[in-house]
Amino acid sequence: MIDLTLVGIGTGNPEHLTLQAIRALNAADLVLIPRKGAAKADLADLRRAICAEVITNPATRLAEFDLPLRDEATPDYRQRVEDWHDDIAAIWAQIIAAHPVAQKVALLVWGDPSLYDSTLRIAARLRPAPRLRVIPGITSMQALTAAHAIALNDIGAPFAVTTGRRLRDEGWPAGVDTLVVMLDAGGAFQAIDPEGVTIWWAAYAGMAEEITLSGPLSETAPLILTARAEARARHGWIMDIYLLRRAPPPVLRA
Amino acid sequence: MIDLTLVGIGTGNPEHLTLQAIRALNAADLVLIPRKGAAKADLADLRRAICAEVITNPATRLAEFDLPLRDEATPDYRQRVEDWHDDIAAIWAQIIAAHPVAQKVALLVWGDPSLYDSTLRIAARLRPAPRLRVIPGITSMQALTAAHAIALNDIGAPFAVTTGRRLRDEGWPAGVDTLVVMLDAGGAFQAIDPEGVTIWWAAYAGMAEEITLSGPLSETAPLILTARAEARARHGWIMDIYLLRRAPPPVLRA
Repeated sequence: MIDLTLVGIGTGNPEHLTLQAIRALNAADLVLIPRKGAAKADLADLRRAICAEVITNPATRLAEFDLPLRDEATPDYRQRVEDWHDDIAAIWAQIIAAHPVAQKVALLVWGDPSLYDSTLRIAARLRPAPRLRVIPGITSMQALTAAHAIALNDIGAPFAVTTGRRLRDEGWPAGVDTLVVMLDAGGAFQAIDPEGVTIWWAAYAGMAEEITLSGPLSETAPLILTARAEARARHGWIMDIYLLRRAPPPVLRA
Repeated sequence: MIDLTLVGIGTGNPEHLTLQAIRALNAADLVLIPRKGAAKADLADLRRAICAEVITNPATRLAEFDLPLRDEATPDYRQRVEDWHDDIAAIWAQIIAAHPVAQKVALLVWGDPSLYDSTLRIAARLRPAPRLRVIPGITSMQALTAAHAIALNDIGAPFAVTTGRRLRDEGWPAGVDTLVVMLDAGGAFQAIDPEGVTIWWAAYAGMAEEITLSGPLSETAPLILTARAEARARHGWIMDIYLLRRAPPPVLRA
């Protein structure tokens, strides 16, 4: 039986690595590194740099593989993702089978394996099922709040985490005054009424390239759209995240 | 001007420390360590152990201080908390003033400074305002999901994070099928209809004492209540967290 360890590596600052992550990487026989063709967004260089920096065990092997593409001919979004995960799991299985000595396999996961990441779902497809272990990593939510030195929640108050697509389609969720938005293809905050809303935004949160902007949404939204387009053009890719907080609605007095 | 660095240390596993946190602690002239009397829940021992383990800079000084108590005579919860934060900020200011050489002050924050933690709010009370920096740390949410090897979110779906008090008072929030509950004084999950709900629970998530339970809420709730009471009696304190997920409501066909 294979031991498969998913190692959260944080959001691109090699110093986000925990001591536990470093230990797990050094305990691995084989580390799988995904590549997305020539795209810089695969951050394969970062993964290689992290491995070169922290792996001191000479027995640990690295194996790079090309991520398959999603089949855009499949019309249903969810089915397209499911098929893609099947394909990736098949590639992992091939590489693991090609390294019969490897009993302990590790994967470096951007951020943390629990948060808008597919690695756990792909791992669940492996047969026979591996012994699975997760090493938590710094998420982009924490990189965002650290960059702005802000708290996620107001005292004792709840918050929600959602995607750009959901914010566009469904608007501000009921019951919360704080909202973290991830996976936004760009500017989903334009879909909500900016009145009384403050935004804290970061692109490349935690990385050397980090850019932050914050302020009233009405004034800050156009600045973010400009900064985002400019950064995306310069770097060839972008990953951003933001927190929206609105003043709680005034209590109506009867 | 003082540099004040809030260092997220993760949830009690000394290996949750990031390389960035270790660097920040070693850059500090003074590290403040809070104590809560004889209570084990202050985890002062853990903070001391972490400092002893990772601080190699002989110039770094540790200063312990007794956390004041909240004034239970103040009837309003929020006012009680505000007053308490004022008191803590005054103590920090005293200690910092007593170490005039200390320009770089660090505080070890359980988990991450952004998540249900008061340190940022206390720091905002200091005058003159310090130069504030936040080092993100592993949160109990990630320790929980890592312990169970589960994702926080379903594919592309939102989730909410709330407190035990809110769950009791307001029930399951609208618009999400996944809910993380923190700061539960015990068993707030009993306030919701367990039909179709699965719970993943952890106490002391990430620590050597970690206990986990998961399963359908209806069957697992009594097991958790028993395990929680027993662990609390044995350790003298408890900190737990859980994730609730319900099957999305069936789509009604017109």
